[in-house]
Amino acid sequence: MFSAETIAGYLNGSVEGEPSTVVTGVARIEQGKPGTLCFFANPKYEKYVYTTKASIILLNRDYELRESIAPTIIRVDNAYEGIASVLGLFEQKKLANKKGCDRFVWLPWRFKKGKNCYIGAYTYIARGARLGNSVKVYPQVYIGENVTVGDNTIIYPGVKIYQGCVIGANCIIHANAVIGSDGFGFAPQANGEYKKIPQIGNVVIEDNVEIGAGTTIDRSTIGSTLVCSGVKLDNLVQIAHNVEIGKNTVIAAQTGIAGSSKVGESCIFAGQVGVIGHLKIGNRVTIASKSGVSKNIPDGMAMLGFPGMEASKYKRSFAVFRNLPALRDDVDSLVKKVAVLENNQEDKSQ
Amino acid sequence: MFSAETIAGYLNGSVEGEPSTVVTGVARIEQGKPGTLCFFANPKYEKYVYTTKASIILLNRDYELRESIAPTIIRVDNAYEGIASVLGLFEQKKLANKKGCDRFVWLPWRFKKGKNCYIGAYTYIARGARLGNSVKVYPQVYIGENVTVGDNTIIYPGVKIYQGCVIGANCIIHANAVIGSDGFGFAPQANGEYKKIPQIGNVVIEDNVEIGAGTTIDRSTIGSTLVCSGVKLDNLVQIAHNVEIGKNTVIAAQTGIAGSSKVGESCIFAGQVGVIGHLKIGNRVTIASKSGVSKNIPDGMAMLGFPGMEASKYKRSFAVFRNLPALRDDVDSLVKKVAVLENNQEDKSQ
Amino acid sequence: MFSAETIAGYLNGSVEGEPSTVVTGVARIEQGKPGTLCFFANPKYEKYVYTTKASIILLNRDYELRESIAPTIIRVDNAYEGIASVLGLFEQKKLANKKGCDRFVWLPWRFKKGKNCYIGAYTYIARGARLGNSVKVYPQVYIGENVTVGDNTIIYPGVKIYQGCVIGANCIIHANAVIGSDGFGFAPQANGEYKKIPQIGNVVIEDNVEIGAGTTIDRSTIGSTLVCSGVKLDNLVQIAHNVEIGKNTVIAAQTGIAGSSKVGESCIFAGQVGVIGHLKIGNRVTIASKSGVSKNIPDGMAMLGFPGMEASKYKRSFAVFRNLPALRDDVDSLVKKVAVLENNQEDKSQ
Repeated sequence: MFSAETIAGYLNGSVEGEPSTVVTGVARIEQGKPGTLCFFANPKYEKYVYTTKASIILLNRDYELRESIAPTIIRVDNAYEGIASVLGLFEQKKLANKKGCDRFVWLPWRFKKGKNCYIGAYTYIARGARLGNSVKVYPQVYIGENVTVGDNTIIYPGVKIYQGCVIGANCIIHANAVIGSDGFGFAPQANGEYKKIPQIGNVVIEDNVEIGAGTTIDRSTIGSTLVCSGVKLDNLVQIAHNVEIGKNTVIAAQTGIAGSSKVGESCIFAGQVGVIGHLKIGNRVTIASKSGVSKNIPDGMAMLGFPGMEASKYKRSFAVFRNLPALRDDVDSLVKKVAVLENNQEDKSQ
Repeated sequence: MFSAETIAGYLNGSVEGEPSTVVTGVARIEQGKPGTLCFFANPKYEKYVYTTKASIILLNRDYELRESIAPTIIRVDNAYEGIASVLGLFEQKKLANKKGCDRFVWLPWRFKKGKNCYIGAYTYIARGARLGNSVKVYPQVYIGENVTVGDNTIIYPGVKIYQGCVIGANCIIHANAVIGSDGFGFAPQANGEYKKIPQIGNVVIEDNVEIGAGTTIDRSTIGSTLVCSGVKLDNLVQIAHNVEIGKNTVIAAQTGIAGSSKVGESCIFAGQVGVIGHLKIGNRVTIASKSGVSKNIPDGMAMLGFPGMEASKYKRSFAVFRNLPALRDDVDSLVKKVAVLENNQEDKSQ
Repeated sequence: MFSAETIAGYLNGSVEGEPSTVVTGVARIEQGKPGTLCFFANPKYEKYVYTTKASIILLNRDYELRESIAPTIIRVDNAYEGIASVLGLFEQKKLANKKGCDRFVWLPWRFKKGKNCYIGAYTYIARGARLGNSVKVYPQVYIGENVTVGDNTIIYPGVKIYQGCVIGANCIIHANAVIGSDGFGFAPQANGEYKKIPQIGNVVIEDNVEIGAGTTIDRSTIGSTLVCSGVKLDNLVQIAHNVEIGKNTVIAAQTGIAGSSKVGESCIFAGQVGVIGHLKIGNRVTIASKSGVSKNIPDGMAMLGFPGMEASKYKRSFAVFRNLPALRDDVDSLVKKVAVLENNQEDKSQ
């Protein structure tokens, strides 16, 4: 439960109305009930500003009310951004309360962990693993030998982290993600079989990284697969062995980066993108969804298509593709006309 | 074990031969052994009708035997559909028997569950969660705070359901699926970092939904990500935050629906389809495998390609694409011929 | 810990220097420390041959040293392949040591397992399941009724194997893979709903198969989904019901094979490939990443594109696609020129 005053303080906002009004949750403006907080940002919803039953409403500082309203008002620079922070307030409060160790937890001999950790039931932590302060490990997680996890990191149920991997501070790893599974490396043999190339590197996840549900990150053959600080990976993403993902790069769901490719900083990859192995992708590269990248990409380029091309060029080519049958018809008709013209010229030259 | 009579009753069929013949399982017609039931639907297998060792055979009502056969016969309108029901008989019998609570189950204080539930070992059920009647929860499942699960729903091993999600009745959720993980929402900051936008909505799965292994469904930012009744999702499908999937829509493996898109009723999406965010897909839309959808689609349209186009139009364009080098050659040759023609005309006009 | 002599014996190599030199691990040549072994294969790193602090160095037999070096040398035909084997030595030693049964393991009545098995905590093994010799089952694994697992197979944390599946010998199954989930089969009903077609077959994995993290393999409707010996599947691969994958075929991450398709032997599929259902793919077929296969493919063909075509043909078409706007311009200009030519001819014929 938070008061208007507390929330306004948190948001650097100002209260109009009763500062002691309290709320226990957030609602959409059109569904606001007493005890909830709502916000107004999208003009389409303006009418609800005057009818909402919410107890507190977030308004932009420059919004002029046409008449007085019932809820306590908190004025902020940007109500839309403000609501995110309010949600964070509630969420963090709830999570921060979870600490201690459930029954049925497998801990190693001489286990090293920081203060205020939570470890859920049926979680297995192998020998040599270490947790920082305020780490939350949900139930049914596997943390292999010598894994280290930084402060404040949250590991959701069913995550599996193989031996020797390093997880930074302030990370969030969603359910059933797998970190440190063997890279996909095999040496073809003369008889057609493949011999496994042992993968004895690890995965290093730096700070402030979020990893989506079901995402898989393979360990390096030797050395480290590296996910730099601030990277955000969506669900079901595949990061192969020896890959490096630069700082603050964002990768949407079901994208795959093949072995040994290096992705720069501050890139944005949409969903279902594929990057083949051994490439170098620059900084601030944008790749449209479903695109396939098979060549190095310089800094700042926007890519689209399969095979991927510079986005604007691909769009121009695709615009013609849409009408290819008409182009074919034009050419067929030209062929006929030119034959007639050639015939006529020949007739005349005879 | 079921008798021919029981099975015929179940299928609305009629028995020819001994009604008390019993079977304990189903076999392919070419592999039928005593004590099994087989069916004949594909003409390619007709010879086996006369040689199978199965004890019971399902035949279409209109199939005329060329000679008498050993197995007891059950005549039905459609043997192929009939076999599905018979399989169901056996399967349901087996599953329905599972009830009770294994040891090593984590249950909350004052846990509310219906009759005839099964809860497997190492499953964690958080406070406030409720199960309906005859719910089967396999081992190693995580059910978060305040989750509700409707009657007869089956949750296979390793499924993780985050707090506050709602699962309907008669649903099946396959192993390692994740429901309610955070939506992929971040606000870019001036310094290049991204700030997490808390995702405090939930996921609502209505009745009769099947969800494949490893599929991920993210919770909404505010409100609900919604999967309507009768929807069938295959394996490794990604449903992003705020998405809605309409009634009886079927989505094949590895397809991804990006944030806030609304998919209509009775659509059929093949595998590896991608739908970008904030779109509206109509009812009864069909999308071919691997297609990318980047625009709204009206009711009933068939889509194909990347970027996606109306299927028939895409096919015509692609037919020309297949022979683009020939088209290029035709044009090159025309360019030369026209140059010659122009030259000749000029010569003559001089 | 291994001596130079032991390692040389294992690699069929010869020692130059002290055969009793021992190492406890492997390092990159530029990071070699005493007690480690390094290798030299990439000419870019040649200078480190003369400066590395590693205790043992693997060199190609034909490499000529320019001056004497400190480490003990092991000469082999191919240092790069050699290092893989050395890594294997260390890895296998570590793993082979793991045996016995953790506490909190769910074992069935009259459980049958071979010698030297390891079973991790929170693993559930259902009735009728059997493990061969030296099987390693990590924590939090689910092994359903009557599943059999062959000798030396390693099953990583969180793997779920449904009832009745058969896993061969010397297999490796990575974390959170799912084997034997229901095939995606539904019969449309007159009212728009879908009725589940029970999937009562199983999955058969032969020997020497590796299965990546998060990969899903569905059970057959009737009969078996079959993964033949020597097959290697990367992460997040989807194998649908009734599929067969031939011997020694390698399939990279996020590829999906739809229902009932048969893939031949010794094929190589890159990442994010899609194969639609009911196809027959020959032996030794190569499919480039992201390609979509919608037709049968004969032995030995290389495929590329979406829809997939013979790779060389696709590349030629795509080369024209890149410059389609220029082609369109050429045609437009031809149309004009031909109109002028026609006009002129007409003028003259008048």
